[in-house]
Amino acid sequence: MAQETAGDRPASAAVLVIGDEILSGRTQDVNTSYIANYLAQIGVDLREARIVPDETEAIVEALNALRARYTYVFTTGGIGPTHDDITADAVARAFDVDIGEDPRAIALLRERFSEGELNPARRRMARIPKGAELIFNAISKAPGFWIGNVIVMAGVPMIMQNMMDVVGPRLAAGPPVLVETIEAYGVSEGAYAAGLEAIARGHDGVSVGSYPSFTSAGFRNQIVLRSRDAALLARATSAAQAMLASLSKENAR
Amino acid sequence: MAQETAGDRPASAAVLVIGDEILSGRTQDVNTSYIANYLAQIGVDLREARIVPDETEAIVEALNALRARYTYVFTTGGIGPTHDDITADAVARAFDVDIGEDPRAIALLRERFSEGELNPARRRMARIPKGAELIFNAISKAPGFWIGNVIVMAGVPMIMQNMMDVVGPRLAAGPPVLVETIEAYGVSEGAYAAGLEAIARGHDGVSVGSYPSFTSAGFRNQIVLRSRDAALLARATSAAQAMLASLSKENAR
Repeated sequence: MAQETAGDRPASAAVLVIGDEILSGRTQDVNTSYIANYLAQIGVDLREARIVPDETEAIVEALNALRARYTYVFTTGGIGPTHDDITADAVARAFDVDIGEDPRAIALLRERFSEGELNPARRRMARIPKGAELIFNAISKAPGFWIGNVIVMAGVPMIMQNMMDVVGPRLAAGPPVLVETIEAYGVSEGAYAAGLEAIARGHDGVSVGSYPSFTSAGFRNQIVLRSRDAALLARATSAAQAMLASLSKENAR
Repeated sequence: MAQETAGDRPASAAVLVIGDEILSGRTQDVNTSYIANYLAQIGVDLREARIVPDETEAIVEALNALRARYTYVFTTGGIGPTHDDITADAVARAFDVDIGEDPRAIALLRERFSEGELNPARRRMARIPKGAELIFNAISKAPGFWIGNVIVMAGVPMIMQNMMDVVGPRLAAGPPVLVETIEAYGVSEGAYAAGLEAIARGHDGVSVGSYPSFTSAGFRNQIVLRSRDAALLARATSAAQAMLASLSKENAR
């Protein structure tokens, strides 16, 4: 058995999407999927995501539940200048720390706004919980921040992605999760389910999923195998391909 | 003050998306957004969404938290024939009821599969918690189900939508949420934030949001007003338009 230390265990993460616009159906959330892909590539396990409305109590409760459980919590949304942008204050409340105008954040905003433009609404974007580090973004200049294990980012996807590029290199990365996808042409899920289960059970350390989608040509099934161990993943993938091939031959008989 | 009974309060809802494929970034969840729009149109408030992996404990815990809190919980994913499809068993565990092969569900599957095709894997799709009602779908025949206040649906979007059409007419609908969207051309969020906050405060019963997006031409801001009261919504929308017009005039000076 391989020696296991805390450092060997992959870091875990949750995403907390904050915004009425997602829950009303107005806006399709694409940030969770982006963060999920980003984290998979640097070997951090995304374990959960939640979407909550622009309400302080809902944000505080979700944040406290998630930050107690995972290595990192990434929030998106609610850090702009309007009255519905309450994330920074909610995060301060969750951590029970003071919040106020941060001179470093004001300095960043001055790169974009003249003194006359820097009105009270825009200055709200400089409200940062005490003890937080700022997360720079090149697009809007209004910073995100990092406090404890919580990383607070913008909701606008381009800005969030910009912030993720700032934060990413500093995360406790592990071996990336490697992925193999097999197209199960002409074999239905129900036909390969037993064989696939046996492969999943026989390859501990490989996560095996089966994903049907419905197209104009009928169902399209994909088998997806994921692991941090390249050799193990290769073995499991070969086994799945062999199992599918034997089923196809059986079907052809 | 208007008389308020339990029947006057809008029904609330949560979505629970079940699936490793969403958390790994492989698949973009589109079901939450579809359900959100569907519910908004029939006047049910979507209050929260969660995404959890294909793990019994995670599903049970999220389901029990959500079903205690909201009128309805809609789950998507994990009701197929493969080993990673564990939603039905997790729901039975959450409700602490037995689960077994449901003859009604077997009858539905027989519409699609011959006796020879109806292998143990496919029969798993007929595992339904005791006391649940089946939710028919015309595409795959494998049913979803409704138990207590939990509505269990497929993850494949077309099938989920089919199930939603079956379930929708039976939900406790309220007045639909009406929406007005104002394009804030040429006025930045920071410029209209104070005016918009005053309008939000002055129109109780209208939810007022401001949503920037970043396009090749720069920021595009939209103000979105939502209410169940058409007259109130019209007043708030007029006020927001007048506020924006006065700011544009000021800018032009």
